[in-house]
Amino acid sequence: MEHPENCEDYKGLTVNKGIEQPSSVNPYLKLRRIPKKRRLSVAEYVEGIVKGDVTILSQAVTLVESVRHEHQAIAQEVIEKCLPYSGNSIRIGISGVPGAGKSTSIDVFGLHVLEEGGKLAVLAIDPSSERSKGSILGDKTRMEQLSVHPKSFIRPSPAAGSLGGVARKTRETIILCEAAGFDKIFVETVGVGQSETAVHSMVDFFLLIQLAGTGDELQGIKRGIMEMADGIVINKADGNNIEKAKLAQTQFRNALHLFPAADSGWTPQVLTYSGFYNIGVKEIWDMIYEYMDFVKANGYFTYRRNEQSKYWMYESINEQLRDNFYHNPIIKEMLREKEHQVLNADLTSFVAAKKLLDAYFKELKK
Amino acid sequence: MEHPENCEDYKGLTVNKGIEQPSSVNPYLKLRRIPKKRRLSVAEYVEGIVKGDVTILSQAVTLVESVRHEHQAIAQEVIEKCLPYSGNSIRIGISGVPGAGKSTSIDVFGLHVLEEGGKLAVLAIDPSSERSKGSILGDKTRMEQLSVHPKSFIRPSPAAGSLGGVARKTRETIILCEAAGFDKIFVETVGVGQSETAVHSMVDFFLLIQLAGTGDELQGIKRGIMEMADGIVINKADGNNIEKAKLAQTQFRNALHLFPAADSGWTPQVLTYSGFYNIGVKEIWDMIYEYMDFVKANGYFTYRRNEQSKYWMYESINEQLRDNFYHNPIIKEMLREKEHQVLNADLTSFVAAKKLLDAYFKELKK
Repeated sequence: MEHPENCEDYKGLTVNKGIEQPSSVNPYLKLRRIPKKRRLSVAEYVEGIVKGDVTILSQAVTLVESVRHEHQAIAQEVIEKCLPYSGNSIRIGISGVPGAGKSTSIDVFGLHVLEEGGKLAVLAIDPSSERSKGSILGDKTRMEQLSVHPKSFIRPSPAAGSLGGVARKTRETIILCEAAGFDKIFVETVGVGQSETAVHSMVDFFLLIQLAGTGDELQGIKRGIMEMADGIVINKADGNNIEKAKLAQTQFRNALHLFPAADSGWTPQVLTYSGFYNIGVKEIWDMIYEYMDFVKANGYFTYRRNEQSKYWMYESINEQLRDNFYHNPIIKEMLREKEHQVLNADLTSFVAAKKLLDAYFKELKK
Repeated sequence: MEHPENCEDYKGLTVNKGIEQPSSVNPYLKLRRIPKKRRLSVAEYVEGIVKGDVTILSQAVTLVESVRHEHQAIAQEVIEKCLPYSGNSIRIGISGVPGAGKSTSIDVFGLHVLEEGGKLAVLAIDPSSERSKGSILGDKTRMEQLSVHPKSFIRPSPAAGSLGGVARKTRETIILCEAAGFDKIFVETVGVGQSETAVHSMVDFFLLIQLAGTGDELQGIKRGIMEMADGIVINKADGNNIEKAKLAQTQFRNALHLFPAADSGWTPQVLTYSGFYNIGVKEIWDMIYEYMDFVKANGYFTYRRNEQSKYWMYESINEQLRDNFYHNPIIKEMLREKEHQVLNADLTSFVAAKKLLDAYFKELKK
């Protein structure tokens, strides 16, 4: 989509000379927008990223997250050139309700794996986040050890927006991080919304952090999330809480036993650990590695990555089709009335939909 | 959408006189298509339905299911006029894997409730069905008692088509049945596909039929379906199987306990019964009535019905938007290539989507 600002000189309409164009609210805007530093070229971005330069990686991610047209254009070129270098990592989704100890856990999980070598990027998806409000991962200091580790890259969730938009940016950031040599990627999310589905569609392994307890603690977890998990890990299995955690482990195991088998052929495991005391972390990584071996051997790993790529293509198409429809001024005007008629039983849902669609396609042809 | 056949006389294009239009393959087609019986008027259909005439109801459902434009036009008028008479029923979705004994169960559930009075319609959703192949519910004789009961109306799944199309027809049939005074509606589905989501979106209560056993029997049930259930009922709790059924009941109860609470505030119940020996059927109805009282008291009943009406409006819109896109000849031509480029890591999913969308909207403007 060409940005309207860039088309000013090329418009095909004849402008009535008698009508003054409104002046910019702030005539100095263009002047002030000039970047302080020279912008890197696409080639420089790609070179920096592939060399593993974290500063340049960070700048590129900022471009990916930018809403400005010229930034997006560069970002897309950079991503495309990074694509051949991407794909070489374990992508792990980590979810759990607030209070489950996600930050501490990610800190110890990350530190443990970095002892083996390699590099770790920690990303996040939280469509409700606002950067200014200390969003998910926004406060890097919550990950005390990772935040100062030279081999880690922590990036908060892209700023608030549609889930599709936020997820897309995170997925593109994964590509850049992989091109920069990060071979472990965490994608954090809170277990309360639809973002789990998005995360699940971009990772190889989905880890759900739970707390011991029977029921109440689960209220915050959205339905369906438990069935996505490749592994459930129960935190705070320490001190007086060990018995409770073991009981929860048994309960979850029994529950998972009732679930149908996953497409991967993998049976989700349930483990206990203590993020605070750093107990049981090695076993969690053993599980993840065992899973990776398993799905690489049976072909599911490649199959799923391909399916995910296709999924995101179709998902973007469908989202854009919907956006275009629901943001059409005619539709915006009609939608409330039709919804009202449906709720009033004046129209069936299907007739209402048809009337809206007819108006939309008529409008598009204009 | 005007059917192309009806526009023949009005086309704006100048037809080159030198080019012969191809003749119909069968010139007697039009003659033979004349219906043997006089077609009823919309008013006659509505009057017949509201009076509870099952023959007329049945004919109207046939119109709903027809793919012919002129049938659809009448059907939509009939449905719209029936809308004010609809809504007055308990809509119950019934799912379970093949072999769980759904037909026998529906037979005894139905017979039980008809003893209280009222009328029962049994519908189905099975997008994979083909009428000729003895589809789900296709063989009415599987419901020995209901199929000959004067107060029941059994209708197989609409013929094969997209899930959206099939679901839409079933939902419209519900409206007609309610207008005809059916105050209990069963919507049957097999627990193996996405049709559960569709059924769940058109019923008040979702009943899942299970068998005793730990794991293997569940293989056929798709993930996420168990979490939709407002009630799980375990069949074949008779003879030597009672202990096994009781054990399954405990296991399912424990599993459900780990699930987060449903939006309705209702805690799903797990019961055992025997369809064959007609044991425990009253308790299942008690559960359903208890649920209905519960959700009517807390306002969830009305809320959910309204949400469902809106859902179907938005769902039809979104389906139609997708259909229009993916059936566009330009898109059909480009799609495979773009998918290939994405899988080859030549293009990101998002750039591929953008290229397709740009081509589509450009084409629509033509």
